[in-house]
Amino acid sequence: MKIVYSDQHQDHDPQQFIVRGRLKRSNEQPERAYRLLASAQAAGHTVLAPEDHGGGSRAAVHTPQYLHFLETAWARWQTLEGASDEVMPNVYPFPGQPFSYPDSLVGQAGYHMGDNACSIGQHTWRAATQSAQVATHAAQLVLDGEHAAYALCRPPGHHAYADRANGFCYLNNAAIAAQHLRQRHARVAILDVDVHHGNGTQGIFWRRNDVLTVSLHGDPHFCTPFFTGHAHERGEGDGLGYNLNLPLPKGTDTAAYLQALARACTAVRAFAPGALVVSLGLDAHERDPYQAMAVTTEGFALITAEIARLGLPTVLVQEGGYLSDDLGPNLASALRGFEAVV
Amino acid sequence: MKIVYSDQHQDHDPQQFIVRGRLKRSNEQPERAYRLLASAQAAGHTVLAPEDHGGGSRAAVHTPQYLHFLETAWARWQTLEGASDEVMPNVYPFPGQPFSYPDSLVGQAGYHMGDNACSIGQHTWRAATQSAQVATHAAQLVLDGEHAAYALCRPPGHHAYADRANGFCYLNNAAIAAQHLRQRHARVAILDVDVHHGNGTQGIFWRRNDVLTVSLHGDPHFCTPFFTGHAHERGEGDGLGYNLNLPLPKGTDTAAYLQALARACTAVRAFAPGALVVSLGLDAHERDPYQAMAVTTEGFALITAEIARLGLPTVLVQEGGYLSDDLGPNLASALRGFEAVV
Repeated sequence: MKIVYSDQHQDHDPQQFIVRGRLKRSNEQPERAYRLLASAQAAGHTVLAPEDHGGGSRAAVHTPQYLHFLETAWARWQTLEGASDEVMPNVYPFPGQPFSYPDSLVGQAGYHMGDNACSIGQHTWRAATQSAQVATHAAQLVLDGEHAAYALCRPPGHHAYADRANGFCYLNNAAIAAQHLRQRHARVAILDVDVHHGNGTQGIFWRRNDVLTVSLHGDPHFCTPFFTGHAHERGEGDGLGYNLNLPLPKGTDTAAYLQALARACTAVRAFAPGALVVSLGLDAHERDPYQAMAVTTEGFALITAEIARLGLPTVLVQEGGYLSDDLGPNLASALRGFEAVV
Repeated sequence: MKIVYSDQHQDHDPQQFIVRGRLKRSNEQPERAYRLLASAQAAGHTVLAPEDHGGGSRAAVHTPQYLHFLETAWARWQTLEGASDEVMPNVYPFPGQPFSYPDSLVGQAGYHMGDNACSIGQHTWRAATQSAQVATHAAQLVLDGEHAAYALCRPPGHHAYADRANGFCYLNNAAIAAQHLRQRHARVAILDVDVHHGNGTQGIFWRRNDVLTVSLHGDPHFCTPFFTGHAHERGEGDGLGYNLNLPLPKGTDTAAYLQALARACTAVRAFAPGALVVSLGLDAHERDPYQAMAVTTEGFALITAEIARLGLPTVLVQEGGYLSDDLGPNLASALRGFEAVV
């Protein structure tokens, strides 16, 4: 399978991440991509650098205001007296209360950054835009005739909303790939197998019926992002019925995962899309540091084989999966499983 | 003037506060109340401890879900592996996107805590509820015939919404006092002269026409809370026209402040309330650490004198005003100015 990868992510290495009140380095580190790349290369896949597809693909998904913020926030932050090196929000607008878009950079940070897990450093914009180019290029390869391509995206994307970063994500690579595929295909499906709910992807397509969004993930009763990912979230307006969430219990193993995946694939088949984007997280693994599920390394091959049986032109987009000795083998398994069917 | 004060605030001393990406101790410290108390005592005012007015006054303003969270959050937080001592949120619900109330404590923290300036420690609940009792007791003194009373509240309250802490505030003492006054008076006005917008007070009464909310504050284009406090925020539904914001430029001096205050008082007079609550921040002072405005110490006497000329039974509720040598003198000036008219 063709692998698209750029080394422009490597200087994006956020040091400010808050979880349970503790300030620490982000779990989303360059080493993740190095391990994934090494594993893909060792498995004999062809690695390509992305071409420059311009700013149109990200602009089709994200608001101009948000893109401008992401591009300029770090430099503006440096002018604030006493500020940390990385942009990190500390005030947030309140749902259900009136508010206006703030002039203040600190306010804008809270508006556009939905948690304390998406600090913006000097090289974040370059890394995020290049990650989106990786996804766009993989989608273009599929439009050009490849049955499948894998986008080794870092930073990941599926938590990013149209105007808001969160959960290590800035630009929604999967949504951008899907939008790119829409040039050719009237209907595109996104199937998200990351262990966390693809809240940003859901949000972007919430009111649309041309992109079906399906997510399997840890139930929000225990799994971040805690506010979304419930089965009752089905879309609104034109999009009602075009969002499917399959929340799964803590500790879900491969067999139980495959049962839920069969439901997801049934929905994708019924939608009859022209192409598919897979948000390929590897963090449902039994030894992933997040410890939410118990999918085995071989399980990822079974998961991608089931997806491959949909028979659709497919862009696999890397999402989560954190540092462990299993990260590389899990990707190799996932790619092997997909190709075994194709 | 009768001063209501409780020493139950003193163990509430948040150590986790984030501003511009830096983790530090909160600016809202016990020493603030000690200085205010010493100043009031030195000026010869009578200090009373609050009676216990029960949980009804806070329950008339805040949701049961929020009150339960505030009461139990610290103990529940201690059971989270690797958590900091104080509850501090790191994920937030997104305005404009669907979300559900989370089961997870970390999610609930993000739902009920709107910024990184309202950490919850072991003694926060006791301090906040006692601060609300201080406000309630001052309101009761006024109902019992005092023309005015001063509630030395700590923690402050005017940023707290019905179901959300923020900006050093947990329970909205001014709103609770106003609600207590509503037992006798059909219409109550709240006049907020803290340098920050009284966003929580606005939010609580946003759809009501029985409580007029008026706030003078630093324009949100430069002053936190950056999302609210604009002149165009006027209330909604039954409350449309019953909220008045008077945003002021950075560096506003006493003369300019008094001009805006005259407009505020005109609105209060037109509303013909039976009683008044003043959210008395002292942070518009020229040497307050927040450095937003340039009101002088004598200016506070002029401000409260103008308010006293409304001739209304009045509860003065302490809000902000941070550590400086001027904090005590500013309170003494404010109380002197009010009493000079009465």
